[in-house]
Amino acid sequence: MLITMQSQATEKDVSAVVEKIETLGYKAHPIPGAQRTAIGITGNTGEIDAGAFELMPGVAEVIRVSKPYKLVSREVKPENTVVQIGPGRLGGGELAVIAGPCGVETREQTMAAAEAVAACGVNLFRGGAYKPRTSPYAFQGLGLEGLKILAEVRDRFGMAIVTEAIDHESLDLVEEYADMIQIGARNMQNFSLLRRAGRARKPVLLKRGLSATLEELLMAAEYIMAEGNYQVVLCERGVRTFADHTRNTVDLSIVPAVQRLSHLPIIVDPSHGTGRREKVIPMARAGIAIGADGIMVEVHCQPEKALSDGPQALLPQMFAQMMEQLREIHKVVTNMPVTVR
Amino acid sequence: MLITMQSQATEKDVSAVVEKIETLGYKAHPIPGAQRTAIGITGNTGEIDAGAFELMPGVAEVIRVSKPYKLVSREVKPENTVVQIGPGRLGGGELAVIAGPCGVETREQTMAAAEAVAACGVNLFRGGAYKPRTSPYAFQGLGLEGLKILAEVRDRFGMAIVTEAIDHESLDLVEEYADMIQIGARNMQNFSLLRRAGRARKPVLLKRGLSATLEELLMAAEYIMAEGNYQVVLCERGVRTFADHTRNTVDLSIVPAVQRLSHLPIIVDPSHGTGRREKVIPMARAGIAIGADGIMVEVHCQPEKALSDGPQALLPQMFAQMMEQLREIHKVVTNMPVTVR
Amino acid sequence: MLITMQSQATEKDVSAVVEKIETLGYKAHPIPGAQRTAIGITGNTGEIDAGAFELMPGVAEVIRVSKPYKLVSREVKPENTVVQIGPGRLGGGELAVIAGPCGVETREQTMAAAEAVAACGVNLFRGGAYKPRTSPYAFQGLGLEGLKILAEVRDRFGMAIVTEAIDHESLDLVEEYADMIQIGARNMQNFSLLRRAGRARKPVLLKRGLSATLEELLMAAEYIMAEGNYQVVLCERGVRTFADHTRNTVDLSIVPAVQRLSHLPIIVDPSHGTGRREKVIPMARAGIAIGADGIMVEVHCQPEKALSDGPQALLPQMFAQMMEQLREIHKVVTNMPVTVR
Amino acid sequence: MLITMQSQATEKDVSAVVEKIETLGYKAHPIPGAQRTAIGITGNTGEIDAGAFELMPGVAEVIRVSKPYKLVSREVKPENTVVQIGPGRLGGGELAVIAGPCGVETREQTMAAAEAVAACGVNLFRGGAYKPRTSPYAFQGLGLEGLKILAEVRDRFGMAIVTEAIDHESLDLVEEYADMIQIGARNMQNFSLLRRAGRARKPVLLKRGLSATLEELLMAAEYIMAEGNYQVVLCERGVRTFADHTRNTVDLSIVPAVQRLSHLPIIVDPSHGTGRREKVIPMARAGIAIGADGIMVEVHCQPEKALSDGPQALLPQMFAQMMEQLREIHKVVTNMPVTVR
Repeated sequence: MLITMQSQATEKDVSAVVEKIETLGYKAHPIPGAQRTAIGITGNTGEIDAGAFELMPGVAEVIRVSKPYKLVSREVKPENTVVQIGPGRLGGGELAVIAGPCGVETREQTMAAAEAVAACGVNLFRGGAYKPRTSPYAFQGLGLEGLKILAEVRDRFGMAIVTEAIDHESLDLVEEYADMIQIGARNMQNFSLLRRAGRARKPVLLKRGLSATLEELLMAAEYIMAEGNYQVVLCERGVRTFADHTRNTVDLSIVPAVQRLSHLPIIVDPSHGTGRREKVIPMARAGIAIGADGIMVEVHCQPEKALSDGPQALLPQMFAQMMEQLREIHKVVTNMPVTVR
Repeated sequence: MLITMQSQATEKDVSAVVEKIETLGYKAHPIPGAQRTAIGITGNTGEIDAGAFELMPGVAEVIRVSKPYKLVSREVKPENTVVQIGPGRLGGGELAVIAGPCGVETREQTMAAAEAVAACGVNLFRGGAYKPRTSPYAFQGLGLEGLKILAEVRDRFGMAIVTEAIDHESLDLVEEYADMIQIGARNMQNFSLLRRAGRARKPVLLKRGLSATLEELLMAAEYIMAEGNYQVVLCERGVRTFADHTRNTVDLSIVPAVQRLSHLPIIVDPSHGTGRREKVIPMARAGIAIGADGIMVEVHCQPEKALSDGPQALLPQMFAQMMEQLREIHKVVTNMPVTVR
Repeated sequence: MLITMQSQATEKDVSAVVEKIETLGYKAHPIPGAQRTAIGITGNTGEIDAGAFELMPGVAEVIRVSKPYKLVSREVKPENTVVQIGPGRLGGGELAVIAGPCGVETREQTMAAAEAVAACGVNLFRGGAYKPRTSPYAFQGLGLEGLKILAEVRDRFGMAIVTEAIDHESLDLVEEYADMIQIGARNMQNFSLLRRAGRARKPVLLKRGLSATLEELLMAAEYIMAEGNYQVVLCERGVRTFADHTRNTVDLSIVPAVQRLSHLPIIVDPSHGTGRREKVIPMARAGIAIGADGIMVEVHCQPEKALSDGPQALLPQMFAQMMEQLREIHKVVTNMPVTVR
Repeated sequence: MLITMQSQATEKDVSAVVEKIETLGYKAHPIPGAQRTAIGITGNTGEIDAGAFELMPGVAEVIRVSKPYKLVSREVKPENTVVQIGPGRLGGGELAVIAGPCGVETREQTMAAAEAVAACGVNLFRGGAYKPRTSPYAFQGLGLEGLKILAEVRDRFGMAIVTEAIDHESLDLVEEYADMIQIGARNMQNFSLLRRAGRARKPVLLKRGLSATLEELLMAAEYIMAEGNYQVVLCERGVRTFADHTRNTVDLSIVPAVQRLSHLPIIVDPSHGTGRREKVIPMARAGIAIGADGIMVEVHCQPEKALSDGPQALLPQMFAQMMEQLREIHKVVTNMPVTVR
């Protein structure tokens, strides 16, 4: 923590701040400048509340210096985390693709999508049994019945299942039936759910909230890890901005930003990120090109009949085309010399 | 719903869209223009998924026309809702003020704040027993013990208690111990929690999410009301933008916007909204001046020792000063002739 | 400036940074902490480029500490600036209202609006002769002819004229014909125009850009003042966010934020800020309640025939009603005890 | 244009709106629905001002349907525009790279950067002679002297010169000395400058404003084209959001969005977009992978001594590495089968 004093602060003001710091058990480091004095604080183990100082006479600003994350941090664990999800791996250098319909609507629709996806060599299948919807009157998912259909997909096609949990009750069931527990964007700061996911024995896919900063995303992962579950994958799925040509604004720069600070894998969801079918493939290519560990994408054999998010689902032949493109791009990125940091 | 066709769309394209609309059981209304054709759709009861049309040849755009809210809507219930919370009323024209510390930290600190608040004639007391915090290592609230302290405040000072629930378990307890259940900004789209609040027998204070649109806020309230709880109060507490001079950007214009579309009361939280003590009182005044039904504000007798959000808490004498100012402003606003709409 | 080192930085890394600081002629203040070292820099007169350090081994972050503004700063000039605009004053404690149509369309329309505005005791008249429009095909203003109509308004009603300049050429004419030069939001960082306004002998109304931070707004004013023109008034007119219930999101908290850092007056424009007639009066009230020095508002006698921004213009009787409300609120705010900072 | 009536609107309200539409010379198309009536308007050639209707009794909302752009539109000109800039081409399918220092600081620094860039086979050189800076006290560019150094770069290395103009005066000189006129993000809605650029005989590089929507970007290009200059290239350089891990948030999805609506080429600027050296190369790869026509990037041989934007400039060896990566990715993207729209 660093405290900057106003230019007209008196020596007495400075002394009072120094004294306060020492009373709290920390060490004060006054740095007199030409125009104003700054005071560094060291010796704290936890976070210091800025409120203790902002009120004092002569104080201009209190600046937080050290970052609060621990377990997610690359400083704590320098090597990349690799997450194993059934037969699939995420974070180990291979191209990871999680694909399937937005929602599990019927057994037939799910099997058709699974067949199309499996035919392209994908081993991670997605599909929502519990759907968070803006309207209480919209399709909310099949629940347990949906989970059973997903389990059948695993049995038949050998793909691991990734599906969302929206509360403690559904998380219990998702943990039982699926291979990876998804925490959706709207629940990224549902701390009670994060703690529960941290006690689960399955890996967790944590989607970035619509207005989450990098720090908040990492701290949400920290909640999960603090409970003992270290198998966490992050996912950029677009944030909310003034831009209106896509449903959300995909912030791809968070991929290298996460990789710099954290050892956790990160993937991109171009389907929710753009909300428009014709932009999904270009954005998927960009996600792999920027260095993401994989993508998560929606596929539907009859998107015009989808009960949710039809306009962003890829048709099977588009998905196949995309897979080819991603494999080419991934090969190029992987073969590249490591960028000088 | 309105579909606009591209300027080069053929008659066949238009016919195909019309046919599709009729197949789905709706009525199509083609509107040929000089440059392009638009097609209106009527006869639908629920929402039509745009995806059914966006893929068709010649379609330029699908525009949603009708709004999805029902129970929250002023069209359904024209007169203002008045919510009774213990001895306090919200929405009936009086100035409502909910005040107290951010978090319940100790019995002493809570009683001191309650005494200061009660001395100003306030009858709604706030204080968090369950604190959603960005970091898992930060103070998370006293839980049940905190609720018991709050219940003691009610007994001693006769104020109704408003406090946050963060999951089903805490909601059970809040419903038992408090007078109003707060759903925080981070849980505004925790639909499972909203449904549970909708089954509670206590009124609900629903805070706007950090990136929630007006429609999403109203739909979150709709979730609660759809379960049978019609005692809902909305709260603007700042949204997330690029602006960095306050913790959040208070969007006061949502107050008249809500009042136009909905019969539910709405209040403003200038403490979380600005995050800076010296801006809390001016923003509180502005909230009442724009026509909000009340404000929610943080008061702490020793903010420099607060375990959370100290820098935004008012000292008791500042709070007393603010109350005077708000009463003056409220009197002016109430006595004003009704604005021509 | 403060440099924080990574936790694994070596002593050699720290020495190299210290050496670099000293080579540049500054003084280095290493602050060793339990986990990492921070290094303060003093002795610089201008801004230090962070780039010099961010590349060095072991450096985690470079944090700018001192603020770059000078002439706009309250540290340099503690007392409020009062700007005289013909018969009107801005910043001296009175309620200042600048009113008139969005654009000068015809002599008749302008005179009608002027009559309505003058009848309410307003002495600052606005009206655009040069209109920045998103589309090149939209009405762009009457130019010089419009300025002459505005000059006639001054002669006839004794009001001072506030009107926008969009380039050097129009600024020459605005300086000649009007009493205050408006720089629009889209030109807030048109530095060439700001410099020209700084050489004008008339006061300047500087509107905040759609995505301008507080610092950028103050620095834009600094551009004008650095050329010698100290008569600058700032104006909050809404910023761009994800919120879609108003045209822009009015960020009222910038009013107390500016007042804390700067001596310049600041007003609020609720017309462009909300873009919706029914929200203009509530927002104007809020602007005065939060402590702004005045407001700028659009009035049109036949808004349904306006060539620009009709939906946000007040009718004369609404304007008269608003003036009454604002005077009441202003009286209350002025009589209030000074808030403890 | 489409007008939706409130559910309680009377038949008389509907008739009044229809009559008004016909009075204005347009054609009204009432569409009675189960809950409310909507009224389509056709027959207009220009834009209809919504203000004419929003005030009428019973009107719920006025929805604009047709888009305002003409010359930029792919509906008007289906085939891609190819812009010739000296020896370089932009928009024709090749990979276009514009590289060089942020600012022209000295002859030596500029020549060194030019040599490094030219060595990688680049034929478009960038460098600012006029620098828009937030602070009036920061380095503002060498002006004419800088343009002469750039002209020397062209003579010596055979690269075309791209440089920014900030007002009419500098645009006259840039038009004389350079090969492409850059309009910066802060001037994207400086309509006077856009018109002047539209009368220039050199191609124009138009950067997206910090809070510009897709429509505003295209309309800014329309301003230039409306004056007769059809050689326009668009550039995404990041927009302003709440995200704080990069200087701006690069919105790559605008690339396919522009390509769908317009025939103009579009490039990406990963240097200003991210503001952080270590993110420039990943973002450049993503820009090419999403389908942009090229990138614009900053290169500096001694970034730690740069007078502006040092932290985002690539070192020559990093630039060479990036060029290899981009060529590989571009090859993959170009060879891909055309995506089904």
